Amino acid sequence: MSPQIRIVLVEPLYQGNVGSVTRSMENFGFDDLVLVNPCKLEGQARAMSCHARDLLESSQKVATLEEAIEGTDIVIATSGIAGIKTDQHIRMPAYTPSEIRNKFRESKGKIAFLFGREDNGFTREELKRCDMIMTIPTSEKYPIMNISHAATVTMYEMSNMEIGERPIADGFDLQLLYDHFEQVLADIKHPTHKMEKTSIMLKRIFGRAELTPREVQTLRGVLRDIQRQKK
Amino acid sequence: MSPQIRIVLVEPLYQGNVGSVTRSMENFGFDDLVLVNPCKLEGQARAMSCHARDLLESSQKVATLEEAIEGTDIVIATSGIAGIKTDQHIRMPAYTPSEIRNKFRESKGKIAFLFGREDNGFTREELKRCDMIMTIPTSEKYPIMNISHAATVTMYEMSNMEIGERPIADGFDLQLLYDHFEQVLADIKHPTHKMEKTSIMLKRIFGRAELTPREVQTLRGVLRDIQRQKK
Repeated sequence: MSPQIRIVLVEPLYQGNVGSVTRSMENFGFDDLVLVNPCKLEGQARAMSCHARDLLESSQKVATLEEAIEGTDIVIATSGIAGIKTDQHIRMPAYTPSEIRNKFRESKGKIAFLFGREDNGFTREELKRCDMIMTIPTSEKYPIMNISHAATVTMYEMSNMEIGERPIADGFDLQLLYDHFEQVLADIKHPTHKMEKTSIMLKRIFGRAELTPREVQTLRGVLRDIQRQKK
Repeated sequence: MSPQIRIVLVEPLYQGNVGSVTRSMENFGFDDLVLVNPCKLEGQARAMSCHARDLLESSQKVATLEEAIEGTDIVIATSGIAGIKTDQHIRMPAYTPSEIRNKFRESKGKIAFLFGREDNGFTREELKRCDMIMTIPTSEKYPIMNISHAATVTMYEMSNMEIGERPIADGFDLQLLYDHFEQVLADIKHPTHKMEKTSIMLKRIFGRAELTPREVQTLRGVLRDIQRQKK
């Protein structure tokens, strides 16, 4: 079980950014995009959206933040400034994207991630509507990220995508390889008192390398060649 | 100890992407950028780089990949396609950014992260020069990310940035708050047989909420108000 995600851009100023965000949404498998009073979306937006043009066209355009978050359960504003002050008396602690992921990993429901205006972020009133603040850990010298970058990091954390299986050699074949190494060490008259340490070291090196089945095959071929040369 | 990072863009075609990458580098505190045969870098690159214009100007421009990776210890190519084939016979397993981070977390030395051409990625010869392949987990339907997005995710994982301390109430004050709750439950004649369960539930709710010192203060004020009303 993992939460559904809505991306909300609040009054984006640059159409290229909107296009970029849709591309990234398509990359990470999200399709719920709401734009609050967006800039014009024309050629530049379409160019940056690449293969996500359908998502750009189908995004919902609304006039107010209230409409944008309708139907969501948790509203999270992203900000480059940690621990933003929403009011004289209310200081909201900020969470990192990975903390947010861990908090909501098993949750049902829908989370709205809000990204503010490129120049002025959010108004105080808008921040008051949010349940949480998220901040991507960045350099103090220059904490303000491009909104499509911030959205990309957010979606990277929140998506459940996986890369394909890595073909890893199975333990039995690895053991045959390690045994083979020991035979070769004996064949080449590696000093007896170093044998055990060297075997262990080789095992560790190749263990760490996470060999593929084909790599094990090739290494064993090389060991056979060494043995053949010796005869 | 953590590794140094070099970002290498191989023949980038769009100057906006190069500018975007420099902005993101500045966000995450990296400054080693090498461009192999880049496109012209003019107004659009400067516009997207925002406050990272110095980094854009100071980036090293070279003619070959060999020059770009000089002085680095590990060369990692990023690719949208997991388990890319570099050759008929050599299939390289791909790692995710977080796997790469964990592998090299304690390493010294310098890692070059390579990002390929926007249209054609890397040549086979270029991939042969790489020690590892990194793939960001994405949708199979559309795995190809914008290079500045891919670079941003990479730097997000590899940077050691932190967000400021979250002001968390200390245990002693929390205990006072929980005791206060119990008093109030007694004052308002909450059924005795429910007391313990309700106390525990309140403790869990407020524990999960990671209260700030100010929030504890305010909650205790509210509890005092309840007690005052009762008298």
